Amino acid sequence: VIAVITDYGTRDFYAGVLEGSILRIDPEAHISTITHEVEPFDIREGSYLLAQAAPAYPAGTVFVTIVDPGVGTARRPVVLRATDGTLFVGPDNGLFTKVMHVMDISSAYEITNGELVRPESATFHGRDIFGPIAAHLGRGLDPAAVGPSFDPATLVRLDETAPAVRGDTLTGEVVHVDRYGNLISNIPAAMAASLHARDEFTMVVGNVAFPVRVGMTYGDVRERELVVLVNAEGVVEVAANMASASSLCGVRAGDQVSLAPAMSSPETPAAG
Amino acid sequence: VIAVITDYGTRDFYAGVLEGSILRIDPEAHISTITHEVEPFDIREGSYLLAQAAPAYPAGTVFVTIVDPGVGTARRPVVLRATDGTLFVGPDNGLFTKVMHVMDISSAYEITNGELVRPESATFHGRDIFGPIAAHLGRGLDPAAVGPSFDPATLVRLDETAPAVRGDTLTGEVVHVDRYGNLISNIPAAMAASLHARDEFTMVVGNVAFPVRVGMTYGDVRERELVVLVNAEGVVEVAANMASASSLCGVRAGDQVSLAPAMSSPETPAAG
Amino acid sequence: VIAVITDYGTRDFYAGVLEGSILRIDPEAHISTITHEVEPFDIREGSYLLAQAAPAYPAGTVFVTIVDPGVGTARRPVVLRATDGTLFVGPDNGLFTKVMHVMDISSAYEITNGELVRPESATFHGRDIFGPIAAHLGRGLDPAAVGPSFDPATLVRLDETAPAVRGDTLTGEVVHVDRYGNLISNIPAAMAASLHARDEFTMVVGNVAFPVRVGMTYGDVRERELVVLVNAEGVVEVAANMASASSLCGVRAGDQVSLAPAMSSPETPAAG
Repeated sequence: VIAVITDYGTRDFYAGVLEGSILRIDPEAHISTITHEVEPFDIREGSYLLAQAAPAYPAGTVFVTIVDPGVGTARRPVVLRATDGTLFVGPDNGLFTKVMHVMDISSAYEITNGELVRPESATFHGRDIFGPIAAHLGRGLDPAAVGPSFDPATLVRLDETAPAVRGDTLTGEVVHVDRYGNLISNIPAAMAASLHARDEFTMVVGNVAFPVRVGMTYGDVRERELVVLVNAEGVVEVAANMASASSLCGVRAGDQVSLAPAMSSPETPAAG
Repeated sequence: VIAVITDYGTRDFYAGVLEGSILRIDPEAHISTITHEVEPFDIREGSYLLAQAAPAYPAGTVFVTIVDPGVGTARRPVVLRATDGTLFVGPDNGLFTKVMHVMDISSAYEITNGELVRPESATFHGRDIFGPIAAHLGRGLDPAAVGPSFDPATLVRLDETAPAVRGDTLTGEVVHVDRYGNLISNIPAAMAASLHARDEFTMVVGNVAFPVRVGMTYGDVRERELVVLVNAEGVVEVAANMASASSLCGVRAGDQVSLAPAMSSPETPAAG
Repeated sequence: VIAVITDYGTRDFYAGVLEGSILRIDPEAHISTITHEVEPFDIREGSYLLAQAAPAYPAGTVFVTIVDPGVGTARRPVVLRATDGTLFVGPDNGLFTKVMHVMDISSAYEITNGELVRPESATFHGRDIFGPIAAHLGRGLDPAAVGPSFDPATLVRLDETAPAVRGDTLTGEVVHVDRYGNLISNIPAAMAASLHARDEFTMVVGNVAFPVRVGMTYGDVRERELVVLVNAEGVVEVAANMASASSLCGVRAGDQVSLAPAMSSPETPAAG
């Protein structure tokens, strides 16, 4: 399986040409599109989506991840190998920052072997390098054949704001707003034990406070009411039942968020 | 073939994780995406799209349909079986209302067999339940193995407004506005015989009337002119040639619509 | 491989039904979606995207291209065959204009064989004709079996504005604005030799002039600065680093563009 994440969008020929470049080498390749809708140039979002998707796929999957505003400049094209045989192909520009938290990356290779790639353009390395390399790897090529190995510790890393807990107050960052408008934080379940001792918290973003009820799932609150829960990926998320929490609260990816016990909680009855 | 309809969108990792959850169980699964772009939480639209798509696929296809605002609450996860072997997987929240008009559903099963699914989260049953069950069914699992059977007549049904004909006037509901802005009604061809005896009708939506010409296809009228026809799915549709009837008329899905013979028709020449 | 370009969008059941109509005939068909997001009714855009994508796929691929506002009218449904065995299926309405510049089309057939298609509706030939024919061709059907051959020179052609060079000034048309906002012209590399003798040009669109720096790739200029380069497809493109040139300049597909040497170039330092 070759699984693909890009910021190519779905209106141009780029996604098709990437698939074509894989199928020219392996017409039997099984290509699974995770998304082509990463915000253009948003390496951080691409990194987040890769880390969320990768653990769901079978071991041995080849992931091609391309968000590459620096295409044609000095950034390295690379292949990473995880201990379970899963492979990652893409530019070394920070895209692999978050997947390294959830997969055990044991080796890394810089793509230099000109025999495996297409004579290289300066602006479309998906077609010329990353697609063909993924196709070869999917057919069983040893990743060491793409070029010299290097220490994965030298991969480019994005800055990340660490989540924190002080008393019963949690602080972190909204790392993603999904299609439903759910606010997904970087606060892990392990920091969120205090959530389950109370019925209601106050979410503060900037200078604005919002009451949020503690729940297990979206349907635990009334329509358009806010709920804070530990989601299926094991992190704290604030959502609205049948509505967009992002729109209701004006919160976006990158915003800092805190969750503090509500003053009168847990004695308060359900909010209106 | 496993065919997929969801409201997951294509910007997040959800569609990819659903595919990954299928491929982990059956790396050879042939997955066909019908759409991930159902309006979030819109069970009615999901139900409509499933009913339109299902008859086009080969008998034996496994359809996974997920529009599931009640995920993690008491609604049942189910598998339905049609007499031709086609299978349907999803939440029992009304999603199967319309497909039951076009496919002969002969048996139904509630998914309770914990050995076939992933330890269940409260918010992502696509990954934990529906994807894995679809993969097992695609590999030939007997649907009776997922859990106890129940009477399909007990499945949750959406309210539906029946179309009607009185004299030569047709009334019904706009059940869908498609990408082109075509207004697709729930009025079947069998009720629309009066259309073909005239050249022009008046479409009334709310308090507004629009002249529409009777045609066989979009190109039968001038650009931006309205045409009423029986479409490829066998229902009455109002479209505009090379333009959006929805934008021209301000009509949306859910609107009630009537089509009455135009006063002066059929003597009137083509409208301007 | 069956590769698909349509204007069906991804919110309706049309793309799924097209896939279903292929899979009913060949459940093993390997379908690659290039895009369903051609602007509705935009034959010119469909033609452009097909010409860009086709050379990237393996020889022998079957391309299904459907942008068909005239569905059900007299325009011919056709199959084209290139000398390398690649096949093209779709309506003869100009869609094949641009692919004929990059592929050697040696024969053409009008689809008339009623045994290969579904009883035909007036509005959905993707499901009834083009999908089934593509599936049969993908399984090895001789294209001559679809119907009588005709001279490819009689295919409908779109008007095209020729690019030109006079002195060091290039003129042409913006044939596409991609997802990143890059302005892709129809000026080929062969006409663009003068670009590389200078550091800066002036792009004129309508009455407005913009300074653009000459580069090899997007990262050669500062963020939000304009760069003109020969892109991976071998044509002149104007882009902005980490931004949308289309938004910055208000330029759209179809606009006429000229690129003239900047007055003071090449002595000018980098623009601010």
